[in-house]
Amino acid sequence: MEHAIECRHIERQSGTGFRLKRGQILRVIDPMGEQVADLMAFNAHDLDEVLSSGRSIDYANTIYLTTGHVLYSNRSTPMFTILEDQVGRHDFLLTPCSPETFQIIYGNYAPHPSCFMNLVENLTPFGIAPDRIPTTFNIFMNVRIAESGELTIGPPISKAGQYIELQAEMDLIVGVTACSAELSNNHSFKPIDIEIRGQGA
Amino acid sequence: MEHAIECRHIERQSGTGFRLKRGQILRVIDPMGEQVADLMAFNAHDLDEVLSSGRSIDYANTIYLTTGHVLYSNRSTPMFTILEDQVGRHDFLLTPCSPETFQIIYGNYAPHPSCFMNLVENLTPFGIAPDRIPTTFNIFMNVRIAESGELTIGPPISKAGQYIELQAEMDLIVGVTACSAELSNNHSFKPIDIEIRGQGA
Repeated sequence: MEHAIECRHIERQSGTGFRLKRGQILRVIDPMGEQVADLMAFNAHDLDEVLSSGRSIDYANTIYLTTGHVLYSNRSTPMFTILEDQVGRHDFLLTPCSPETFQIIYGNYAPHPSCFMNLVENLTPFGIAPDRIPTTFNIFMNVRIAESGELTIGPPISKAGQYIELQAEMDLIVGVTACSAELSNNHSFKPIDIEIRGQGA
Repeated sequence: MEHAIECRHIERQSGTGFRLKRGQILRVIDPMGEQVADLMAFNAHDLDEVLSSGRSIDYANTIYLTTGHVLYSNRSTPMFTILEDQVGRHDFLLTPCSPETFQIIYGNYAPHPSCFMNLVENLTPFGIAPDRIPTTFNIFMNVRIAESGELTIGPPISKAGQYIELQAEMDLIVGVTACSAELSNNHSFKPIDIEIRGQGA
């Protein structure tokens, strides 16, 4: 039986929030290439359960999560399984860019769109407080670590049309952005497309 | 003017919780060498503000935080400054070991002490819920990352008596453990000592 595919277009430097049922598949597409999308997720039935970078990295034993890896919650419960990854380079170390990111790292105190504020805007209607948004899974973000521990943020290696596909392992509230930080997107802000497949459990 | 130094001895595979005033200095000592101590902290006046690995790593631009680096909260506010670091190798990627760590990574379903449960036990009296304990600053934990992203946990490089000293940048509630995981401590569980100096602001 065929099911309809729900599509959403996330404009440059913006975000979206939505429900995902267990078993549904979320495809995050970089339509133009070299564009990061920050992902955050909460248990739809208990907002105190949230995506955990530390648990996911620990259990996968790698900082580069890709096809076959599981993204875990702060309670060590699977939230997503990565079904397909056409890019293979995502970051799970850094928090979403925020007004403070631009102030502290770039000395830029002017108003600036940010993934954090776009997640706040789109997750607040689901009852999620800003303080509850931790380190995001930064899809297509290209962070390299030198032997010294120093971080280098390079242009994403994603090419136009490439995607990552994640299966929801529980009922979720999800936030996704088209990232607003200059350095993460090779200084060119582009949109992100998402597709949701299946009816879920 | 001299002030009394408050000392605490953390027995092997246990933890402690305490208040730290802004300006006070916390020294975490590895008395026997090769022993990890997990650290977590909350704003004493607003428990929704908590230590953030993602913001700290982002603003320091390194995964190896050491002398001079600042540990930030989820609101991008400084919580600690590292005043002195005699070891120079700590981890801020991985969550505290928990019952699930031993189940998922080691297949060990028998009861096992863990940093997470030791933090829960010692932070609960301050009103901190288990779900609010994120990725800890894992003092003396020796995590290396290969070019592929794969993690290797080696024996701590801390020698007997070496320490790290952190200055509180706000009034804090702090939890510290003597880590319970075999791999992180070269398969030998040892105590941790802490000292608190100064009267604070």
